[in-house]
Amino acid sequence: MHELVERIITEGRHVGGGIVKVDGFLNHQVDPGLTDRMGEHFVHHFTAVQPITRIITAEASGIPPAVATARLLAVPVVYARKTNSALMEADDYQADAVSRTRGTAVTLRVARRFLHPEDRVLIIDDFLASGSTLSALMAIIEQAGASLVGIGCVIEKPQEGGRERLADQHVSIVSLAKITFDGDQLHVYV
Amino acid sequence: MHELVERIITEGRHVGGGIVKVDGFLNHQVDPGLTDRMGEHFVHHFTAVQPITRIITAEASGIPPAVATARLLAVPVVYARKTNSALMEADDYQADAVSRTRGTAVTLRVARRFLHPEDRVLIIDDFLASGSTLSALMAIIEQAGASLVGIGCVIEKPQEGGRERLADQHVSIVSLAKITFDGDQLHVYV
Repeated sequence: MHELVERIITEGRHVGGGIVKVDGFLNHQVDPGLTDRMGEHFVHHFTAVQPITRIITAEASGIPPAVATARLLAVPVVYARKTNSALMEADDYQADAVSRTRGTAVTLRVARRFLHPEDRVLIIDDFLASGSTLSALMAIIEQAGASLVGIGCVIEKPQEGGRERLADQHVSIVSLAKITFDGDQLHVYV
Repeated sequence: MHELVERIITEGRHVGGGIVKVDGFLNHQVDPGLTDRMGEHFVHHFTAVQPITRIITAEASGIPPAVATARLLAVPVVYARKTNSALMEADDYQADAVSRTRGTAVTLRVARRFLHPEDRVLIIDDFLASGSTLSALMAIIEQAGASLVGIGCVIEKPQEGGRERLADQHVSIVSLAKITFDGDQLHVYV
């Protein structure tokens, strides 16, 4: 998605440690028009695996691109919760992930009644880095006995090896832009 | 918004303690069509205060209705972060809120570069209960010297007094559905 590459190049800020802040349009401030076009790209890429019955993401940054995709497909989005609130239940599907930017493990939770064995699920998330969050979402889908039909990520960081780590699942992984580092030099490409 | 009232009546689950779970369409699973129509209602209600230059919400449940409203107005959304991640900065605008469903205080944070004195800001959030989250968002807007032009909430719980607590700000508060309790009896209305 060339528009996204341009936005990362012009607005992304490399803050060191392999972290590029894209909080101007992805994970703090959201650009609704750009987000809609991300949804269009994902729908186009995953045409072959339809029907998709449900989209799963993780709070909070995955929600805008997931909802943008879901509205075009007219299917519900479930966002896995990271907080242990009074709203969650003991029998929730659960899996652990490590947050790169928080530096801690988080437990992702999805209520049983929002994921069923007959579901054909598309995962949409903001980043594919180590693959930890995506692995947790995949584990939750497996616990439910549902079918994973594809994974769409807005930005992939190929040097962190997530795609290889997820390869044994034989599922199509699509990213809209990729970021690599060569020392302090940032490369952004589709 | 009669459609929303119907959904709360048919799908909401009163789990005691004054909490009605509406996680089937608002704060765990999201119905994109319903969310779009929430956005249309908010835009209609706040026509008189335009131009609106930015929408502010709090992660995570506020994000879908905020983005649905923002896409119709073609303005950015900023969602206040509740996590102290590596992406946040020491000079962020900050204010504390108490989460009813988590039972703990959380600090909401907004980066300085996403809120400016010339901004005319609409707050959109999922719930108006005690008003604690909304008060924190209002404090952040005030720190930035921006103008608050309205507050839109999907569901209001009038018995928790949030509207009265926010009244001294003299800003228009719109909710799309209201929930009250009479003992164990739930009343839902526009």
